[in-house]
Amino acid sequence: MRYSVFAGGKRLRPMMTLAAAAAVDDRSAKVLRHSLPKVAHDFSHAKGVAHDFSRAMTAALPVACAIELIHTYSLIHDDLPAMDDDTLRRGRPTLHVVYGDGIAILAGDGLHAEAFTLLAREPVSDDPDVIRRKLRVIQLVGEAAGAAGMVGGQAIDLQAAGQAPGHAVTLDGDRLRHMHALKTGALIRASAVSGAIMAGGDAALVTAIDAYASDVGLAFQIVDDILDVEGDPASLGKTAGKDAASAKPTYPAIFGLDRSRTLAAECLQRAHQALADAGVTGSLLGGIAEWVVSRKS
Amino acid sequence: MRYSVFAGGKRLRPMMTLAAAAAVDDRSAKVLRHSLPKVAHDFSHAKGVAHDFSRAMTAALPVACAIELIHTYSLIHDDLPAMDDDTLRRGRPTLHVVYGDGIAILAGDGLHAEAFTLLAREPVSDDPDVIRRKLRVIQLVGEAAGAAGMVGGQAIDLQAAGQAPGHAVTLDGDRLRHMHALKTGALIRASAVSGAIMAGGDAALVTAIDAYASDVGLAFQIVDDILDVEGDPASLGKTAGKDAASAKPTYPAIFGLDRSRTLAAECLQRAHQALADAGVTGSLLGGIAEWVVSRKS
Repeated sequence: MRYSVFAGGKRLRPMMTLAAAAAVDDRSAKVLRHSLPKVAHDFSHAKGVAHDFSRAMTAALPVACAIELIHTYSLIHDDLPAMDDDTLRRGRPTLHVVYGDGIAILAGDGLHAEAFTLLAREPVSDDPDVIRRKLRVIQLVGEAAGAAGMVGGQAIDLQAAGQAPGHAVTLDGDRLRHMHALKTGALIRASAVSGAIMAGGDAALVTAIDAYASDVGLAFQIVDDILDVEGDPASLGKTAGKDAASAKPTYPAIFGLDRSRTLAAECLQRAHQALADAGVTGSLLGGIAEWVVSRKS
Repeated sequence: MRYSVFAGGKRLRPMMTLAAAAAVDDRSAKVLRHSLPKVAHDFSHAKGVAHDFSRAMTAALPVACAIELIHTYSLIHDDLPAMDDDTLRRGRPTLHVVYGDGIAILAGDGLHAEAFTLLAREPVSDDPDVIRRKLRVIQLVGEAAGAAGMVGGQAIDLQAAGQAPGHAVTLDGDRLRHMHALKTGALIRASAVSGAIMAGGDAALVTAIDAYASDVGLAFQIVDDILDVEGDPASLGKTAGKDAASAKPTYPAIFGLDRSRTLAAECLQRAHQALADAGVTGSLLGGIAEWVVSRKS
């Protein structure tokens, strides 16, 4: 479990959780702007940073960590030979290469359970508002991670790759988008939305942040597909060119590279608009969206 | 997910949850005595039965279902070739035999997430007491299912079977007991304890039911090991003689059959005593303990 959680990674999801909480809460925003690089660098540092946090940020931090645990478990399981069969992740051999498939399955299961334990346990509070928010977030994260979200998307992906029984499904643009909306989009949306909820955001703000995250999630996937064609394996930290080699449906394969870049830019524009319409300006959420589209790894 | 959940099975854990809730709540006890056979027969029937339930029982029912989902996910993953490599479960081919390893991993993951979604969602209530109990149960179930419980026990089991890196560990009686306390005991205890919590049991009663469940869990495992030696594969619904064939450490292997039977009887006696000491008499919990020790499948 430690091997995979502390292998680094972009920490996109937890950053979105914290940035969404900060977008709801001004005091948090100031603290976060100062401390985000440290938090992103090392979660073990995050508890220390939390001392300076406002109540909203302290409430969002365990959710940020829990979602990263769920994301990490999903990478471990997806990398297994029975799924995507990847041997390199975050610049290191994948977990099953080092410890075997059995322990890799269990490490993923352990992280999955730990995520929900953490969501239920922290922040420790007897405030009826806080405990209501915690329950709402647990349900939201569970749905995003489950069969109607991440797990369902991965099942469609397996079937499209011909690795599951039944006819191999050919994905067109719409179906590809639907698959990614489940496989990666649902948890990215849950990351941002749960940050906004823990910070006490009202319904209109939560809806706007959800719309923002939906487009950021799609942009993230389009750029992922583009980087698999163009990217540098050393900076990606995973095997490039793998999609084409396995004839996986991707945005570049269906739309070409130029049109894929345009689609990503359109997502970015819509994400900014959603924030602007809700009166969220100058928040870190905008910066995260920019980074998602411009990143090279 | 449906294939494995609705394959039948003993439903021991959910019955313990409901019986523990009934032990706390007299009105529930009467209803449960009448309806338990139906509930056990088919969970889809349980919602109808719940209409007659007291509030305590209605609060415990989603927890009972969620724990059965977690138990089912753990069976799916344990049966994988990378783990125990079983091809028969509950009288049917194991899930990975039918749908492949990838879908089996995902079905387990989907059930795992669904369990926590259910725990957070139901019973729908805005009562701060109920919300507090739900959060407490989510934390308890998460800990029991995770690395400090079920997943940790399975990791020790894998290592003992020489399927994980590092030296194969030889389990003596104490280590075998510890492994089972984690692998099966933790979730069985969580089943009973969470039923008592949802029914509003006080600390003394919850502690007594925990002690009871700890011994029932151990007895269950000892009898499981005995049945693997003596049992009839047709009524077991899974492959018998598998432990000996794989040189797995078991109670009969370490203590012999006679001493194993005595150990199980001692567990039963302690379980009854824990209930009697707490003033719980004539509850279904006692009957469940008797069944665990006398069962032939």
